[in-house]
Parts: sequence; structure tokens; C-alpha cells
Amino acid sequence: MTRTPFFIQTAQELAQTAQASYQRGWSPATSTNFSTRLPEANRFAISRSGIDKSICQPSDILQVDERGVTQPGFEGRPSAETPLHIALYRYSAHIGAVVHTHSIASTLLSLEWAPQGKITFSNLEILKGFQGTTTHETSHDLPIFPNSQDMEALGKEVITYLEQQTAPQFGLLIEGHGLYAWGADLAEAKRHCEAYEFLLSCLLVKGQREGARLSL
Amino acid sequence: MTRTPFFIQTAQELAQTAQASYQRGWSPATSTNFSTRLPEANRFAISRSGIDKSICQPSDILQVDERGVTQPGFEGRPSAETPLHIALYRYSAHIGAVVHTHSIASTLLSLEWAPQGKITFSNLEILKGFQGTTTHETSHDLPIFPNSQDMEALGKEVITYLEQQTAPQFGLLIEGHGLYAWGADLAEAKRHCEAYEFLLSCLLVKGQREGARLSL
Amino acid sequence: MTRTPFFIQTAQELAQTAQASYQRGWSPATSTNFSTRLPEANRFAISRSGIDKSICQPSDILQVDERGVTQPGFEGRPSAETPLHIALYRYSAHIGAVVHTHSIASTLLSLEWAPQGKITFSNLEILKGFQGTTTHETSHDLPIFPNSQDMEALGKEVITYLEQQTAPQFGLLIEGHGLYAWGADLAEAKRHCEAYEFLLSCLLVKGQREGARLSL
Amino acid sequence: MTRTPFFIQTAQELAQTAQASYQRGWSPATSTNFSTRLPEANRFAISRSGIDKSICQPSDILQVDERGVTQPGFEGRPSAETPLHIALYRYSAHIGAVVHTHSIASTLLSLEWAPQGKITFSNLEILKGFQGTTTHETSHDLPIFPNSQDMEALGKEVITYLEQQTAPQFGLLIEGHGLYAWGADLAEAKRHCEAYEFLLSCLLVKGQREGARLSL
Repeated sequence: MTRTPFFIQTAQELAQTAQASYQRGWSPATSTNFSTRLPEANRFAISRSGIDKSICQPSDILQVDERGVTQPGFEGRPSAETPLHIALYRYSAHIGAVVHTHSIASTLLSLEWAPQGKITFSNLEILKGFQGTTTHETSHDLPIFPNSQDMEALGKEVITYLEQQTAPQFGLLIEGHGLYAWGADLAEAKRHCEAYEFLLSCLLVKGQREGARLSL
Repeated sequence: MTRTPFFIQTAQELAQTAQASYQRGWSPATSTNFSTRLPEANRFAISRSGIDKSICQPSDILQVDERGVTQPGFEGRPSAETPLHIALYRYSAHIGAVVHTHSIASTLLSLEWAPQGKITFSNLEILKGFQGTTTHETSHDLPIFPNSQDMEALGKEVITYLEQQTAPQFGLLIEGHGLYAWGADLAEAKRHCEAYEFLLSCLLVKGQREGARLSL
Repeated sequence: MTRTPFFIQTAQELAQTAQASYQRGWSPATSTNFSTRLPEANRFAISRSGIDKSICQPSDILQVDERGVTQPGFEGRPSAETPLHIALYRYSAHIGAVVHTHSIASTLLSLEWAPQGKITFSNLEILKGFQGTTTHETSHDLPIFPNSQDMEALGKEVITYLEQQTAPQFGLLIEGHGLYAWGADLAEAKRHCEAYEFLLSCLLVKGQREGARLSL
Repeated sequence: MTRTPFFIQTAQELAQTAQASYQRGWSPATSTNFSTRLPEANRFAISRSGIDKSICQPSDILQVDERGVTQPGFEGRPSAETPLHIALYRYSAHIGAVVHTHSIASTLLSLEWAPQGKITFSNLEILKGFQGTTTHETSHDLPIFPNSQDMEALGKEVITYLEQQTAPQFGLLIEGHGLYAWGADLAEAKRHCEAYEFLLSCLLVKGQREGARLSL
């Protein structure tokens, strides 16, 4: 199968996003995965399983269908977390890209705040990084889910949660595993990811200063 | 409208400054903005609104007038914080460039020190990075202003403060929002920005060591 | 002696690995060393002694025999820690590459946890980075050995320990000296190294937050 | 005056060293300076005053004499700290290069340990980075001097101290100002600098964990 110009461009952008994530320390030991919705119905571009993100190439981006099956013309297995990406795309047609990072901050804080089930961020300028937010005078919740190797079950749990929310949702933490963030396109998903990672870094450093669990 | 060679050079330098700021973690999630005064009266070069600074290009630098209006031959909206940049240029003809960074240190310390209204740095060699300072045996205040989405009002509040000062002023913090620094030209504004960010990082790390709010 | 295409490729990969390690702050002051098993019986490629890893070149990779002797056609001394690398290759034919890093986290935590003799990591997604691990619901021990300048003796002590273990072993700490990690090939050794360094960084930051020695 | 091939090579290496120092956060706001002894008697290559180290070029390296006077064929002022560099070259013919860094760790720890007058590092593998050190089972002192803008006086104070020592000396701290390190050539001076900066970073992080002033 010949790649469309759209797919070629998307694969380049996803590979660059993966390499940039590695450079920031957010993709250690082949962890993390990155995807976008393709213009063809129920088709998605997603990074291959087990790839060293420091050298992720466009050829490491696979096309999969809505069951996560690698499409003809592509070889290899997509990321083991493909079902969670697809659950998000199915949940909302407004989601065009999903990025997953595995930073120190998201790992530690997802464990530390798991009993509360979420982290609430308030009154910070960076909150304007979230789509539709026009003032720092607001609050935003980042929910935390228990880790699981059953990605189908985790996907359902996440969607059940998201369907109950009225506030806009742009990300989630998985305990001891990291951050998922999404957006209308890859640029927006990256912006949301950077906003969350910045908020988590601030919270981590604030906690180091005060020796306690503290919200921003 | 054709770009002057001066503008082309300026736009390259501003784009490089934005990319370098992103690489240091000071421009997350499309935050921050960078500007210079142009040789034409009441004209300024400033970064476009909502740009991912990791890929900021010279074409993302717009020319605006003293009301912040994008000039003919340029497209798009300048940064939402353009009025604060312009207020600084109007305040002093000696200001030729303004850079705004959004680091973890400036975010956390602007919140922590807001009750004092300023942070005072003393007896450090890096203070010689500030224009006209020839010894470490000195003190320098970095004022802190409440955050606001009304950039015209914030600009006025800043200018009122600056007009009351007798000591040279090179920067300010906005609560939960970050650092503004300025100078006679972009090189000096960057030097002042780096001096402040270094001082803030030192203070942040010092506080982590001693579990308390401590001035340097 | 002419280099085989395999050796040329291996030397490039080892030099790139060394440079990348330096860039992450894991190879200060010419410390650390990197090796692979060669297809020729009892021959190994290993980095030269005393090389600045920021500029490590393929020509800094030497071929040595099972006694650590530089082979004809190569000049200079291999790393002083070559005997430890070779002890690992002799211990298991499944080990194809060994990387040694000298990070702040591995230096400090190897000292701090030396009385326990190991660090145990549990219930973290990154544990899936270790070969054969398919769930985060597991524990993994990283043993700690006293530092020594007698690399033959240290190698024997390590092998004695490894031969007593039933769980798969992928790395070890040396007190005040850093991390050794290994794998079937260089890609796997790097993945194991990154997983350990990530775990150690998490533990270091967690300890800063809570002012105590804490396992993850 | 025509540059000798030796000077051209030296200027490139010094400029690269300065840029690398900036990239690690050790040269903020035009601080720091870098020099080597030249083969001509009483001639030295040193970085220009007030240069942004992120863009330091070979043309920013000046030739000076033993009084710090810029030599014919070169333009501009050498670093204000040239007298301290020259005092070190005069102190010992074995010193061929001097590097000065201005890191967060050296700034904070030089202030914190000033009452003791030195920091002692013991039993760490990285100590083998110091010329002539063959085991981790050793101790090494890094002396701390009060900051001064009188570089001639500071140079004399440093030399008086060095002449009283019997142990090999490779560096010093200046309070609130940073680290000087030296060696037989630029490679050795860089290695000593990296060893000190690594030791200082370890000490800084250790102090954050334990909330106290602690030696390694």
C-alpha cells in the first residue's frame, strides 16, 4: 500500500514528537506512544511497540483500524496501549491526537495523589494553555486511574469517567505509569501535554520545598 | 509590504531567542512572548499569539504599531500580552527589547513571595549581569505584580510602579505567570533574563535545602 | 588488521551511546565505559580508557580478548573496568552488551542504600522495560556492591552473586561509583540502563520530597 | 598579526568549551571565562569580556600578555578576571589551561560552606578524575575564597594559599561566584571542572534530601 501525502506528513510529525519527548526525559526505556486520527474512517496512525524513542523514525508509525489491527502495507505490532488511544478517539470525534508521556513528575505524583483520585490546579497562567480557557482564574482537574495491563478494560473505565464530566477534559494520569493528553490535532495535544507536564513539575518542586502534599 | 533588512535580522533573532527559551523549559505550551523596538517611530516586532516556541520561525514575528495593531503586510494576531510590552517601550526610550519567560522557578517564587511584593537579591556575582552594576556588593529588587488578563490595566500598574523607582529597573514577576525582563537591545534583555532566571533557580534550590522561604 | 563491517557498525553504536550518555550527565570527567560481545569467540569491543565521552569516536572503541588485551590493529588501553565487563560476558552467553553510567542518582543512592545491599522497585510501569517482564505488578532488585579498584576481584564477587540468583538479573550498583546494566544486545542494555536510571531518579526525587530513605 | 595554526586551534577549542558550558547552565548572563597558556613565553589565550557564551566564537578569544594586555592584532578587552587566570599560570608552569564556571551548585555551596573555608570530598569514584588519583579511597579539598572585584588581590590570596599546600590542587570556589578549575591542558582542566561540578551537584542533592549541611 502506498502512503498518502497526509500519512507521510503525519508519520514525520509523530516521529518528531516522540524524539522531542525522549529529549525531555519523558520517554525512557522505549515507553510512551503517540497517535493521530487519520482522514480515512476508523483509521489511526500510532507508534510501533517497543521502539527506542530517541531514534523513532516515520517508518515506526503504523496505520491501524478501530480494533488496533495493523493495516496492509505496514508491518509489526502497534503499541500495547493502542486500545486506550482508540477508546479516546471513539469517545469523541473532536479528539484528533493522543500523546502519552512517562515523566518522573507524572510517575511520582500519580502515585502520591492516587488516594484523592485527581489533582486540581488553580489560578495559574499556564491553565490558559487548555483549549477554551481564557483566564488564569479557573480550576482544572487531572483525574488519576489505577494502572492495568488490560488496556480494553482501562479504556472502558476512562470513557465511563469522561462521559460523566461536564467540564472539558484534556488528559489523565495512570498510577505509576504517566500522563495521557489529547487535543483536536497533534499541536493541541502537545500543548495540553506540555501544560500538564509543567503543572506537574511545579507541584513536584513545590512539594520538595514544603515537605508535604500540596496542591497548586 | 517588503521587510527591511533590519526587520529580517530582528525577526531571525527573536525567533532564535524563542526557540532557545523553549529548549531551557521557559516557554511551555505556547506561553511567552518576545519583542524589540523597531527603528521606525512607534513600531515594534513581536511574536505571534499562540505559537509553539519550539518551532518559532521569523515568519511568526509581526510588526505592530503603538496600539498593538498588526501592520499591513503582516498577518495574524500579536501576543495577547502586547500591551504590556508596549507600555514598557512607552515608559522609557532606553528600552529596546522585552523578553517574557514562563519557568518553573518564576511561577513558583512569584506566588510564594507575592505577600512581600518583591524578591531582594544581594551579594552575588551574577548581579554584575545587570547593566551598570560593577560589584557583587549590592542589592537588587525584583518586584511582583498580581496576574491579570487586562493587559492594559497591568501595563498601567507596572508603569506607575516603575516611575516611582530611583534604582535601575530591568524586570518584574507576575504571580503564577512568570518573568518579564528588558534591556537596551535584545542581547541585554536576554542577559538580564538569564541573570534573573539564574537568581530564581538559586533561590528555589536554596529553599528546597532549608525547607523555608529564604532570600539569597 | 582490517575492521569487519560488523565491528565498524558496533564501534559507531558504542560511540553514539557514550556521547548520548554524556549529554544526559551520566558520563562526567571521562568516567563510564561501554562494550559489546563480538561474533568472534572471546572477542569484545570496549571503549578506550580515559576518553572524554562528549567527543567519543568510533576510533575510541578497541577490540580486546577474554583477558582484556588490546588486539593487533588497535592501539591504546581499554577501560580500566574491562575485567568487570568480561566477567559478565563469561557469566552468561546471553549477555551481548554492557553499559556503565555514573549519574548523580546512582552515585548517591548506591551510597545511601549500601547497608541494605540492594534497592527494590515495585508496582511501576517502567519495570516492563526489563526483558521478560509483562506487568507492573512485580518487584525487581538492584544489588549494590562495595567499590573496589581490583576489577578482577569485583568481577568474581559479582559473578558469585549472580550465580546464586533465580530471578533475571540486568544490572548492579557499585557504591559511590554508579550503575552497570546489560542485555542481549546494545539496544536492550540501553533500555535496561534507562529503566534503572529512571527508577533511581524517581527514588531520588521521592526522597527529596519526604526527607527520608524510601523505597518506591 | 596573523594567527598561528596553534592559536586558531586553541581559539576553536576554547569557544567550543564556552558554548558547552553554557548549554549545561554553567555560563549564565555572559558570566565565566576560559583560557590556555600559549607556546610563546608569557602569552595566553582568553575569552573576551562580556560575551554571550551561547554564541562564543573563536574570534572572541584574545591573546594577552602576562599583564593581561590585549596583544597587537586582537581587539577588545579580555575578561575582567584575566588577572586571576594569569596568577595561576605564574604560580605553576604545569598549569596549561583554566576554566571558570558559574553553576547553581557552585554558587550556593560556596556560600553555604564559606564558614568552613573548604569542602572535603571522600571515597567517591569520581575522585579518580583528578590527575594522579588512582583510587576512590582518598579525600580531596576544594578551598573557598571570599569574592572580590580586585582580581589582582584575589590572585595573590589564591597563590599564597596554593603555595602552602602539599596536596595537589586543581580548583577553588569563590563565594557566590563559582568554580575555577585548571589542568595541564584544556582537556585536563575540563575533566577537573566536570569532576568538581559533579561532586558539587551530588552534595547539593544530598543536602536537599537530608535538610542539612552535609559533606560527601
